[in-house]
Amino acid sequence: MELLKSHKSVREYSSKSITNALLNDVLESGIRASNTGNMQLYSVVVTTDAEMKDRLSPFHFNQRMVRGASVVLTICIDFNRFSQWCKINCTSTDFSSVLWLLNGVIDASILAQNICIAAENEGIGICYLGTTLYNPKEISEILELPIGVVPVTTVTMGYPEGIHEVADRLALSAIVHREKYSKYSDEEVMQIYKEKESLESSRRFVVENSKENLAQVYAEVRYKRTDSEFFSGKLIEFLREQGFRL
Amino acid sequence: MELLKSHKSVREYSSKSITNALLNDVLESGIRASNTGNMQLYSVVVTTDAEMKDRLSPFHFNQRMVRGASVVLTICIDFNRFSQWCKINCTSTDFSSVLWLLNGVIDASILAQNICIAAENEGIGICYLGTTLYNPKEISEILELPIGVVPVTTVTMGYPEGIHEVADRLALSAIVHREKYSKYSDEEVMQIYKEKESLESSRRFVVENSKENLAQVYAEVRYKRTDSEFFSGKLIEFLREQGFRL
Repeated sequence: MELLKSHKSVREYSSKSITNALLNDVLESGIRASNTGNMQLYSVVVTTDAEMKDRLSPFHFNQRMVRGASVVLTICIDFNRFSQWCKINCTSTDFSSVLWLLNGVIDASILAQNICIAAENEGIGICYLGTTLYNPKEISEILELPIGVVPVTTVTMGYPEGIHEVADRLALSAIVHREKYSKYSDEEVMQIYKEKESLESSRRFVVENSKENLAQVYAEVRYKRTDSEFFSGKLIEFLREQGFRL
Repeated sequence: MELLKSHKSVREYSSKSITNALLNDVLESGIRASNTGNMQLYSVVVTTDAEMKDRLSPFHFNQRMVRGASVVLTICIDFNRFSQWCKINCTSTDFSSVLWLLNGVIDASILAQNICIAAENEGIGICYLGTTLYNPKEISEILELPIGVVPVTTVTMGYPEGIHEVADRLALSAIVHREKYSKYSDEEVMQIYKEKESLESSRRFVVENSKENLAQVYAEVRYKRTDSEFFSGKLIEFLREQGFRL
């Protein structure tokens, strides 16, 4: 499918705005995606106001996409709306388990991807911000998310400016297993990552970070254990505050 | 986008097989989706063998889609392959945190949805099986998933048989918030679910389950607290066995 195969993350946007009508059409396509029990346990907060983008920006580590985008979408698990409906109907649900947390993350992510594809089909460029889970409490305070609502990911959108390239991917055979998971020999793993390691950008990363190889750049610079510990601690604290039993 | 707007979950499949070439093309489109740091921390286990479908079936509560589908895809978080690569390169990563668990679920879900859309574009019908998180240990044993690999969701695929209808959705205005989350009044919540409650299928559910209203069917029959407790306990135990600190 050409649209999917030509996907690129777009981080530079022109000043052209996405119209409300187009955004609504994209979101309408988005919510057609499959979801658990058709309960639609999610919400989307749309940010177009410049001041709101300024407030969100530091919690996405001032990545230029937040202020540069026409629209910023914060995609959230939402157990609040459904729980309120249950209360009105003299019953109650319990979404506080790890199972429901993961169900919620799955549904919110599937929704996000459907929205992204609908947007890309309209010539809009998108970028996911994984930083959402690094600072969920701060983002929630700005967006005034109530108990039971958790921001899962953020998508920035705008018309692309400049040239964006399709990123490398591992060979399909490295990802797909037939009938059973086939464990990798060390030789196979080395083969799988060989092309990635040989990319000019990868070799530059290694030099710039004074490391011996690309794996070390990932493990010791980009996704350090100490960062993961710190941000995971913040995330757990926030999830507990939002009503999850973790 | 017509393809997305016409999405239906397809649970009845014809006997026509999906060819290997087509499946690979669909999967190639799938892995073009955005993912955290382009580390591709996921694997897909393809089940086409009838005996393997028979073995998986009970752990999806014998839903007819497993045996009926041409292809069953178990979409997994995979920290194993990347960790092995790091080890070979004299470094180590730590993906055991809740943050990485959720990152992994997001990436696997986005991958799953990209695969589904590519398949639907080829006239293939899909259905997600949320049961994957109910019996992850049993499914992992059948598929021989190693430490660091977690099945997140399952997608069944085949050519549609019979008529499948587009499911209802809440109005977009119920899902989308502008700039800040707007809390719902009880009147608004009642209005949001009114159309869903008035569907013939909803009214039938209420009668069949001897309940007073639709919310009670969801909360007390379909997604009972005791079930959620039980399966969440199993899930946590499995995640710990797979190396997560929960």
